Amino acid sequence: MFQLNKVSDKTKARKGLLETDHGSIETPIFMPVGTLGTVKAVNQDDLKNKVKAQIILGNTYHLYLRPGNHIMQDAGGLHSFMGWDKPILTDSGGYQIFSLSDIRELREEGAEFQSHLDGSKHLFTPENVVDTQRVLGSDIMMILDECPPYPAEYDYVKESMGLTHRWAERGRKQFEETEPLYGHQQMQFGIVQGGTFEDLRKESSEFMASLDFEGLAIGGLSVGEPSDLMYEVTDYNTDLLPREKPRYLMGVGTPGNLLQCVALGIDMFDCVMPTRNARNGMLFTRNGTINIRNAKWKNHHKPLDPDFPSDACQRYKMSYVHHLFRNEELLGLELASKHNLTFYLWLMETIREKIEDGTFADWYPGMMEVVERRI
Amino acid sequence: MFQLNKVSDKTKARKGLLETDHGSIETPIFMPVGTLGTVKAVNQDDLKNKVKAQIILGNTYHLYLRPGNHIMQDAGGLHSFMGWDKPILTDSGGYQIFSLSDIRELREEGAEFQSHLDGSKHLFTPENVVDTQRVLGSDIMMILDECPPYPAEYDYVKESMGLTHRWAERGRKQFEETEPLYGHQQMQFGIVQGGTFEDLRKESSEFMASLDFEGLAIGGLSVGEPSDLMYEVTDYNTDLLPREKPRYLMGVGTPGNLLQCVALGIDMFDCVMPTRNARNGMLFTRNGTINIRNAKWKNHHKPLDPDFPSDACQRYKMSYVHHLFRNEELLGLELASKHNLTFYLWLMETIREKIEDGTFADWYPGMMEVVERRI
Repeated sequence: MFQLNKVSDKTKARKGLLETDHGSIETPIFMPVGTLGTVKAVNQDDLKNKVKAQIILGNTYHLYLRPGNHIMQDAGGLHSFMGWDKPILTDSGGYQIFSLSDIRELREEGAEFQSHLDGSKHLFTPENVVDTQRVLGSDIMMILDECPPYPAEYDYVKESMGLTHRWAERGRKQFEETEPLYGHQQMQFGIVQGGTFEDLRKESSEFMASLDFEGLAIGGLSVGEPSDLMYEVTDYNTDLLPREKPRYLMGVGTPGNLLQCVALGIDMFDCVMPTRNARNGMLFTRNGTINIRNAKWKNHHKPLDPDFPSDACQRYKMSYVHHLFRNEELLGLELASKHNLTFYLWLMETIREKIEDGTFADWYPGMMEVVERRI
Repeated sequence: MFQLNKVSDKTKARKGLLETDHGSIETPIFMPVGTLGTVKAVNQDDLKNKVKAQIILGNTYHLYLRPGNHIMQDAGGLHSFMGWDKPILTDSGGYQIFSLSDIRELREEGAEFQSHLDGSKHLFTPENVVDTQRVLGSDIMMILDECPPYPAEYDYVKESMGLTHRWAERGRKQFEETEPLYGHQQMQFGIVQGGTFEDLRKESSEFMASLDFEGLAIGGLSVGEPSDLMYEVTDYNTDLLPREKPRYLMGVGTPGNLLQCVALGIDMFDCVMPTRNARNGMLFTRNGTINIRNAKWKNHHKPLDPDFPSDACQRYKMSYVHHLFRNEELLGLELASKHNLTFYLWLMETIREKIEDGTFADWYPGMMEVVERRI
């Protein structure tokens, strides 16, 4: 159940509330990525109470391979397995099949692939990824789609989109004919494809809207195209989507991307960037982005940003976090990961406040400059 | 300031209170090892509030090399650098020189060694390790000693002990002639050597007692000798130590070692075992020791020990912790490390309770059996 509460005057930014049986999600929102049922280097209590994550993402491809559906169902689903009582969104595994595994065959029935772990063969179909996500018990599940690479030719993208549409119909049917396993409701989101071609995006948006999913994702972006092109496609794609459904831009992005794409009408985001970059020492701050491994922080005995509600900022000196990274200490990874996620969630909260009080349009260009600054 | 509150009737177990400017330490106590200013995989808040560590250990050798004395002093000492406001004990670096570095020359003046990091040359003397520990600002500092390997010949151990004694005199003098740097008091502990030879232990104990250190350590054990021999030496060595000084058995040990050595009159312990073994999946429980990597936990959807106050026990299923280890997820290292340390600190707390209520002697043999059981 999605409720749209406010739309910015001068931009397409929207503020809303998405209700699930595991609690409400305030949008625009960023979803930390917990690939294997753990947001890397962050424990569930901290994720909830310090990072203040409202929803996290799990990867069907990875969780299907390990621990596997049998153990997952015995455990009572992903919430129970990982000890997380707030909402979870799971992807369908499509993206990982194309990026991680050796695809053996992509056919009408589905995608046959070899596991990147042990080479074993598996078939994902539009129906069985619904079944797997029933076993996972995610609050929001995604349909199986084919995500074409960038750049790709018009004819290839059009044909691929056709397959995604036929899979979407089958996935929606499977969703409607099956029931949740653990007593809480699940939603299903469609995925709009069509590459960077406006007519295909229009066709795909209309098709996906016709299947009455609980939400719609913009897929096929953040696959290597320039930022400006991503913004351009997002801009015309959001105009093609029903106003009353939540809109999820998959795999995006930098803090600057989030600000810009909120302005273009996106409600939900996920990306590995805050945690992956954290593990490389890159920290996002309200003054710009730093690399804590840089020697200039070696003798800098102040917190990163004492007023900012993150452990790495308030509690520890930059010289200490630098020291942890220089010595490959695990605590460095934890502090940096928690910090970046806290920053992302703080950014989304601030965005919501600015939309609410009507100042988003004036505020976000300045914030874009800040987050894209390197210090 | 050490206060001895109770001594067990049937064993030599003692209960006491060691006061420092960063708070009191209830003994017998276990000190988690924070080699580089971080107890691996555990953040300072959890170390204090969940693990309930009362004192931690830092390694002078490592901290001298990184971040180095200059940065450490600018940071205001180790407490300030790492954000830890409870007591810290630092070793003198002697043990690491002998175990990690290429020693270039061991001479009367001190030990010249090459850094294991970059091969750079350094000299540790009885005086400058006091100075370095002034810079670290530890509540308890240790003297520089030579720790002979096991087995070692009588003549070598006797000669080495002589050097340690001369160094002890010089170290104590340096301690008495210098002042703390950060406004809190520091203590200095001597280290008894003498290998496994009773007459040398006696000579060393009397010598160290004569220098009026604030506490005395038993060094030269836990270097590869059989447990029974360690117990035997500890047993006669504690009889040779002044009753009113705290006694620290360096580098020990397993939960069984702690129980046995408390019974032999030891007040303080440190060991990397709980954290190092945690990172290999070995978890200590009140029912015995398990390896969470073992396939038998794969589909075991209950907490490890639901009544035990540790995250890994109460909050997460064993199947989930197993899954984290199988997938090399950082959260597994955090949960296991916190669990084992919580277990060690719980064990020490229970030991203190049993000494207090006079049941320690009857209780500990049964507990020895439990902690040495593999399940």
